[in-house]
Amino acid sequence: MKHFTHIADLGPEGVQEVLDQAVAWKANAPGHHLAGRILGMVFFNPSLRTRTSFEAAMIRGGGNAIVLEVGNGVWRLESRDGVVMDGDLTEHLREAVPVLGRYTDFLAVRAFSDGGGLDADDADSVINAFRRFAGVPVISMESAREHPCQGLADMLTVRENFGDLQNLPVTLTWAPHIKRLPRAVPNSFLLSAAASGCDVRVVHPEGFDLAPSVLEQAHEYARATGGKVSVLRDRAEAAAGSKVLYAKAWGPTDGTAEVRLEDWMTRDSDFDMMHRDAIFCHCLPVRRNLEVSETVLDGPRSHVIDEAENRFHVQRVILDRLKGGA
Amino acid sequence: MKHFTHIADLGPEGVQEVLDQAVAWKANAPGHHLAGRILGMVFFNPSLRTRTSFEAAMIRGGGNAIVLEVGNGVWRLESRDGVVMDGDLTEHLREAVPVLGRYTDFLAVRAFSDGGGLDADDADSVINAFRRFAGVPVISMESAREHPCQGLADMLTVRENFGDLQNLPVTLTWAPHIKRLPRAVPNSFLLSAAASGCDVRVVHPEGFDLAPSVLEQAHEYARATGGKVSVLRDRAEAAAGSKVLYAKAWGPTDGTAEVRLEDWMTRDSDFDMMHRDAIFCHCLPVRRNLEVSETVLDGPRSHVIDEAENRFHVQRVILDRLKGGA
Amino acid sequence: MKHFTHIADLGPEGVQEVLDQAVAWKANAPGHHLAGRILGMVFFNPSLRTRTSFEAAMIRGGGNAIVLEVGNGVWRLESRDGVVMDGDLTEHLREAVPVLGRYTDFLAVRAFSDGGGLDADDADSVINAFRRFAGVPVISMESAREHPCQGLADMLTVRENFGDLQNLPVTLTWAPHIKRLPRAVPNSFLLSAAASGCDVRVVHPEGFDLAPSVLEQAHEYARATGGKVSVLRDRAEAAAGSKVLYAKAWGPTDGTAEVRLEDWMTRDSDFDMMHRDAIFCHCLPVRRNLEVSETVLDGPRSHVIDEAENRFHVQRVILDRLKGGA
Repeated sequence: MKHFTHIADLGPEGVQEVLDQAVAWKANAPGHHLAGRILGMVFFNPSLRTRTSFEAAMIRGGGNAIVLEVGNGVWRLESRDGVVMDGDLTEHLREAVPVLGRYTDFLAVRAFSDGGGLDADDADSVINAFRRFAGVPVISMESAREHPCQGLADMLTVRENFGDLQNLPVTLTWAPHIKRLPRAVPNSFLLSAAASGCDVRVVHPEGFDLAPSVLEQAHEYARATGGKVSVLRDRAEAAAGSKVLYAKAWGPTDGTAEVRLEDWMTRDSDFDMMHRDAIFCHCLPVRRNLEVSETVLDGPRSHVIDEAENRFHVQRVILDRLKGGA
Repeated sequence: MKHFTHIADLGPEGVQEVLDQAVAWKANAPGHHLAGRILGMVFFNPSLRTRTSFEAAMIRGGGNAIVLEVGNGVWRLESRDGVVMDGDLTEHLREAVPVLGRYTDFLAVRAFSDGGGLDADDADSVINAFRRFAGVPVISMESAREHPCQGLADMLTVRENFGDLQNLPVTLTWAPHIKRLPRAVPNSFLLSAAASGCDVRVVHPEGFDLAPSVLEQAHEYARATGGKVSVLRDRAEAAAGSKVLYAKAWGPTDGTAEVRLEDWMTRDSDFDMMHRDAIFCHCLPVRRNLEVSETVLDGPRSHVIDEAENRFHVQRVILDRLKGGA
Repeated sequence: MKHFTHIADLGPEGVQEVLDQAVAWKANAPGHHLAGRILGMVFFNPSLRTRTSFEAAMIRGGGNAIVLEVGNGVWRLESRDGVVMDGDLTEHLREAVPVLGRYTDFLAVRAFSDGGGLDADDADSVINAFRRFAGVPVISMESAREHPCQGLADMLTVRENFGDLQNLPVTLTWAPHIKRLPRAVPNSFLLSAAASGCDVRVVHPEGFDLAPSVLEQAHEYARATGGKVSVLRDRAEAAAGSKVLYAKAWGPTDGTAEVRLEDWMTRDSDFDMMHRDAIFCHCLPVRRNLEVSETVLDGPRSHVIDEAENRFHVQRVILDRLKGGA
């Protein structure tokens, strides 16, 4: 593995290796395994968990991070090829990225979807430009198509609660939100769970489909691992006997879908038909009493803080795997 | 001590212990006493001294700091309980704070008064939410009620100039400003000086009272330490024979008080009736020729730069006392 | 050398010493030569290369950097003397700079020209205030008059390509831009090349003169080193036989000059009359297809990424020379 920007960089086998290592290092910290390494962190969008957990992983490992926020103290960056740069973007990725690669040992990048649609998300042009031009390993801190470190942290959390992931029923449910959020997180949960052999049920309102390419990849992983992927319309069917309720908001496919928000907020009653030990997961940040009731968030089923902590544990494994260079 | 957000976390005895240790470490630096420790720094407001001195204290001690600015590259945070989060605040303190506590060894927080009045300042809801949810020790970098590290640095500066603090006459004078500044700094000077046994004289125009709860706490410290606390209207009376003139602007109690600004700017002539060795102190940033004349600031009585340096010295003692965990 | 804010702090002999050391350390890294050192970095303007390369130089050397952005999480700073500070600037350099000097071992500062004209650039008031008030060594990360670390990195790049710099023909050409950029970079290339004994040809349209004081200093260096400085109007004459084409945009002298932009964009054909091994240099960020065609930038003559990397190599030499204190 030279880069880690998509679950496909690991594949099902790699996902399990990372989880195994993360479990081991969560029990026994690896010491200064990143000594002398510098991670360059490039943010096109805000962050709290991602930034802090990556910085902490570098520091705990004996290394350092340099944090850059594009357009906020750092020049605004152009990504399109062939343009005459006579607008408000000061520098092109074709210069900025290799330059940063000369000063650092790897680059972590956050570049959310620009809302250009499922095909544009799939092309994932910014993060792929980093892969192409960096000269050092590139790690995704969420791009248009995926948030793969989140997917790994999700699976680590599920594994800590239930052990064996094979055929484990897990449910990804759409959630209400005031914004048309990108699909990187649901994509990554789906891909990570399918790569782990889970029985994944995805449920969302009409008009909120995930991208065909992502579903196809998830089905392929399920076939390889003996897992299962179902896309459903009925929350009760998706929840029945399931051990994980993973709530996440994302935007409509074509921008016009209507949905009764109150039908989709996660409540305590949603757990009635689930497994008695079922847990609640969310990638955070979460909108209290909009995506999920505060009684669920503050109750014993919620593992959202552990899930966030697990970002740290999976990421230091990823950093270790990539520290040898591109 | 599990947290340090208010002078009450130390009490009079603790204040003197911190000052003793700061004097000792200023003479002989403690080496890498913070090795392996990460301080998470969360700013709701700007900073220059606070940020740099805390980062420097962590680094000099062999540790590291991670700096987060709320709303500036980091999600905007909600602090109210029970709300439906359908507005422009992305994440609740109930998630953000414990998550940051999982990645770091302690959290330092700056959350100025929101101008909601003396009772709201006293309740100090944001910093107290950090105490409640962090899971690790919390340090104030100034909150609504207090700026306790500033108070400690002030007392260290006074002690370096005059030695014994018992019954030392010190004067806190209100100063003019274009903004209605919060009371955290005057509160902290008053509480720290009273906890150190000083003869504290506070002088301000009518309509600029400090909070009753703060004055009551200061009187209680004065009784315990054999010090004295007086609140005066007359600058001459407050300055007579005093060894320290501490100038600080803060806003009116009810928002309507009128005051002749030119009567309150500190000038060289203010030192005529003070002790011949009297010094000038200010927490900085200071408005030159508005709060105090530049001849005072640039003259030999001013110890404002030493005072700022002392932030570093007291803070590394605080960090050391808290490094064992919450 | 107590500070490094202008090429004059090194002089011709010092410039060559820095280049020699940079070549040596690029081959064999110096280890933790900056252990225990903290660099305070103060930005009045955005940065990508400068910030990352300085932070990386401190970290690779075993030290640390603290990054402050004026007006962005840090108080806005006043630099004028004698003013009544009743406006929107919160703190004066006379306090902020010595305070930062108390927490750190050296300060690096970026303070671009405010567009006040050649005399104001020459006076360089902000960076000179840092020199005066810091109490620790001050390093320029570009100020109104110069960007001296860039000039050193430029010369290192030229030297890596051509070896001996004595009488080497190098060409600095004006380039088109949508903004009236400052002259710090062309000034620094000119001064560094003259200090290295090059045959420097500067070519720009009428109305875009460099400052007389800078040209005079360059001529003085050329006399001392046996080099040569020519200011030309004809690009063909400036390029003839030259080994380096250094393109850089800057603003008109009096704000009204007209120029046919298409005559000045660097193209592949510009190299026809140059030396067959001629290289293209630019400090970055560069406007593709406005300052220079993308075919030049992406072609084999371009050394802009190496040039940026060399920022790191010269800066760690500068940091080492200044680590002993002011």
